[in-house]
Amino acid sequence: MATTMRRPTDPAPPPASSIGPGPVCPVPLEETQRVLLGHGSGGKLSARLLREEFLPHLGNDILAQLGDAAVLRLGDSDIAMSTDTFVVKPLEFPGGDIGSLSIHGTINDLAMMGARPAFVSAGFVLEEGLDLDVLRRVVRSMGRAATEVGVRLVTGDTKVVERGKADGIYINTTGLGLLDGLFRPSPDRARPGDAIIVSGPIGRHGIAIMAARNALGFETEIESDSAPLIAIVDILRNTVGVETRVLRDPTRGGVASSLNEIAAASRVGIELDEESLPVPGEVGAACELLGLDPLYVANEGILLAFIPESAVGRVIPALRAHPLAAAATRIGCVVDQHPGMVVLRTAIGGTRVVDMLPGDQLPRIC
Amino acid sequence: MATTMRRPTDPAPPPASSIGPGPVCPVPLEETQRVLLGHGSGGKLSARLLREEFLPHLGNDILAQLGDAAVLRLGDSDIAMSTDTFVVKPLEFPGGDIGSLSIHGTINDLAMMGARPAFVSAGFVLEEGLDLDVLRRVVRSMGRAATEVGVRLVTGDTKVVERGKADGIYINTTGLGLLDGLFRPSPDRARPGDAIIVSGPIGRHGIAIMAARNALGFETEIESDSAPLIAIVDILRNTVGVETRVLRDPTRGGVASSLNEIAAASRVGIELDEESLPVPGEVGAACELLGLDPLYVANEGILLAFIPESAVGRVIPALRAHPLAAAATRIGCVVDQHPGMVVLRTAIGGTRVVDMLPGDQLPRIC
Repeated sequence: MATTMRRPTDPAPPPASSIGPGPVCPVPLEETQRVLLGHGSGGKLSARLLREEFLPHLGNDILAQLGDAAVLRLGDSDIAMSTDTFVVKPLEFPGGDIGSLSIHGTINDLAMMGARPAFVSAGFVLEEGLDLDVLRRVVRSMGRAATEVGVRLVTGDTKVVERGKADGIYINTTGLGLLDGLFRPSPDRARPGDAIIVSGPIGRHGIAIMAARNALGFETEIESDSAPLIAIVDILRNTVGVETRVLRDPTRGGVASSLNEIAAASRVGIELDEESLPVPGEVGAACELLGLDPLYVANEGILLAFIPESAVGRVIPALRAHPLAAAATRIGCVVDQHPGMVVLRTAIGGTRVVDMLPGDQLPRIC
Repeated sequence: MATTMRRPTDPAPPPASSIGPGPVCPVPLEETQRVLLGHGSGGKLSARLLREEFLPHLGNDILAQLGDAAVLRLGDSDIAMSTDTFVVKPLEFPGGDIGSLSIHGTINDLAMMGARPAFVSAGFVLEEGLDLDVLRRVVRSMGRAATEVGVRLVTGDTKVVERGKADGIYINTTGLGLLDGLFRPSPDRARPGDAIIVSGPIGRHGIAIMAARNALGFETEIESDSAPLIAIVDILRNTVGVETRVLRDPTRGGVASSLNEIAAASRVGIELDEESLPVPGEVGAACELLGLDPLYVANEGILLAFIPESAVGRVIPALRAHPLAAAATRIGCVVDQHPGMVVLRTAIGGTRVVDMLPGDQLPRIC
């Protein structure tokens, strides 16, 4: 008998006061004991799930670093390892598909740790009834994306689940890269006086996905920025070198969530200059229409770099010479006030706190 | 508009003659262009998907080896890397759950290549509405399984999909292990004269899963054999050493599929002795009832070892001294007749060919 009863050992649901005023609370009480879409948002709920449910049972000193990738010593080599499962919907969208995204996402996470991506594994979950033509296009795109950056797909696995137990294709990729001894950007290395650079326009991936879901109600030319960031990291490696303190690709949760994580990990304050944020006109228009803030919209082909202020003058031209970073610009700086907090200086001279996204802006963005 | 029309560029469906006599064919024509459950079986359809759709676009010399894990050189280290996505249903079953299984499955694949498992990543796909208590139990079980064998979970990712787009929890684990220079079992190293040993009773995982799905129609005490095989491999390392030619854990597709893969990779014939197969009474009874052959039923805690005949006498007692290999026994040998083929000598003196499973015996077994 498959009944769902609370067993005597189950913890009692939290008192109503802890989650809202009871009868008018929009989240049913019982839901607090269930997984919500927001648990996958990359925002506060995700962080809580990780902190409360995963780390206590799976944690160790390496996992607890919570970088984009883990840094490991195996034999005589320093290795970065990163994993990501892609559940993006739709499977194909302007500027990419789940195949290329699954390569870019994972190799970018390795690159953000300063590693040179070398090998990738792929685990497919396929839904029974999936059109083999779709699978073929996705696999081809995956192969092309790997070849483009010289990464080899070395091992894989395929599972098939019944109709209605997946959504076409889910892909896990896990990547390995080699670290060199000195170039080691890390989210806890930001320090007051650093400048913050973004390598390109923000918000394109998220808005392209929304457009592909027909959520905008109007036509747009915006394509996802999905791209490999290895060459951009190499420019920083060559121009700033070991003084590149932090690198991060602001994917789920957008620029705001990434900066909040860095501010917390480095225990510093961050100040953004609203007027300098490179928000494409169409992204801005779509955000205005949907009531979204571009700072929270996902990106898949830009990075945030924290570097000494003195390096900005030579880094920006070097970045702009590369087609993937033609719009690179300085967007803010690290301060010693308000540690752990991100503050935006608005165009009209005010300031506002840019918090982490509490729940979910858009499920299944990557 | 989400209509599913054939576009002009789609390949035409195959002629009816290639898949059956048309009107009475149980598989609709169109299905040949779609993913079937059998594509995930580990049998012939899986092999075809891999050969026709994945290898041409993703392939390289490492992927083409198709071992349980890839063997990589990274920096100055030889590393084995293996990935597996677990979609087992139900999530909890007698003898284990998806959490412990996701650790055992991946570290066993590393161990089969002779590697010492060291690090594991975890990628979760959670279904909206999942009971957090179930997630907690699974995560705890995963942590315990990793701790038991000294493997560290170093990086992870969690995605949440809408209700009805997954089935509770899917887990991808990707493992890394270090290889030592000499101990390198590989599926293409079997040679005539080798003895084949199995480390324990066969068919327990598959029958335990079927019982947990109430597919048997009777009560059984059978538990999954889900277990780490590192200690068993160490016994072989210490007693047979570099002459351990092949190691394989016969999971999806069972002993029969693994032996067929080895026979093909090594271009040798394999002879099994039916009377020596360690089939527990309850597994045999369940198989008889369901019309299954225990040779095709999945296992998650036994291995097949190909070793020189001369080593059998000292290996069997060493294996039997370990609780996970107390039923270790010699089940057959490698011959130079019928290369690529597995033949069973039956109890009544006949022989029959043990082919690879064409389609699916039981979906979502692991």
